[in-house]
Amino acid sequence: MQYFPAALDRLTEQFARLPGIGTKSAQRLALYMLSLPPEEAEAFANAILEAKRTVTCCTVCRNLTDGELCPICRNPKRDPSVVCVVADPKDVAAIERTKEYRGRYHVLHGVISPMNHVGPDDLQIKSLLERVAAGGVDEVIMATNPDTEGEATAMYLSRLLRPFGVKVTRLAYGIPVGSHLEYADEATLLRALEGRRDM
Amino acid sequence: MQYFPAALDRLTEQFARLPGIGTKSAQRLALYMLSLPPEEAEAFANAILEAKRTVTCCTVCRNLTDGELCPICRNPKRDPSVVCVVADPKDVAAIERTKEYRGRYHVLHGVISPMNHVGPDDLQIKSLLERVAAGGVDEVIMATNPDTEGEATAMYLSRLLRPFGVKVTRLAYGIPVGSHLEYADEATLLRALEGRRDM
Repeated sequence: MQYFPAALDRLTEQFARLPGIGTKSAQRLALYMLSLPPEEAEAFANAILEAKRTVTCCTVCRNLTDGELCPICRNPKRDPSVVCVVADPKDVAAIERTKEYRGRYHVLHGVISPMNHVGPDDLQIKSLLERVAAGGVDEVIMATNPDTEGEATAMYLSRLLRPFGVKVTRLAYGIPVGSHLEYADEATLLRALEGRRDM
Repeated sequence: MQYFPAALDRLTEQFARLPGIGTKSAQRLALYMLSLPPEEAEAFANAILEAKRTVTCCTVCRNLTDGELCPICRNPKRDPSVVCVVADPKDVAAIERTKEYRGRYHVLHGVISPMNHVGPDDLQIKSLLERVAAGGVDEVIMATNPDTEGEATAMYLSRLLRPFGVKVTRLAYGIPVGSHLEYADEATLLRALEGRRDM
């Protein structure tokens, strides 16, 4: 790409490092950025710097926050005796969208993944154990993704939590609402059968 | 998205404004940016600011450059008597990749598009006419995209250029190399037939 100024190539490289952005998209985004009025491009750069500067992890649940505690840990109406363990801040947002869960969270910031060199010490597991050890927690809900790594992480955590005598539960597996039986895979159908309930 | 800090939401909004980035992708990118080490996030922001500060348009051909003239206009080996008119800096890069074209360029920065309120005055047309009027140009090659707006812009320009007595040509239409006849659309096949050559 020696046809473009070096600063543009550098910006393209930066965009290409983002997940899901290929070289062609990165070039398109870099050219788009150049086509913006200077103050809008500056606003973009400042949004990055400001987010990086102000956003930290909640000291209790490790969710993202711009204070010491996240809005959920700050909220006295949220039940501190139920802790939902998720892999990622995105998952907190997903569960919050149900508008039904009234407990608190604990964000692991990843799952155990030997393939990607992520071990238990790279995750917010110690902080979870300390939180449970401090008392006041009756139930820990495992809400990691239903894939191999999410499962393994949930299994690992449930074993670690057993000595504390808290109830450890797992999100239910089954047919997604609104889907069709014929398109469900065997593993999901099997779990749905196993988890059947009285009507 | 009231589950995230305001600064994160603002960064998500900035990403969502980029072309081809939806709300979900924007959130993923913003969270990724937060997961980067501070110096890498800063490097990203600085790449935007630096590109915006240093990249300008070549005073002759309006291609992107970090000097007064772009590398192509600066190169004495490039034939100044042939000017290839393209809509976008991306198209310069595309033609340069052929490694065969030895003339110069003129970048319009868009095409005439009444639907998007882009008229001739919003494009680098005046600078093209001034360049041709100054003399030394024998041929102008229209290399706008072969769609309605690109065609209309090329047609409009060729009419404006007629009084100057320069040769105005158009990129050939036809079957793309390596493609299959059965997948070619009728318009392309018709143009390929019309443009057939002796073997």
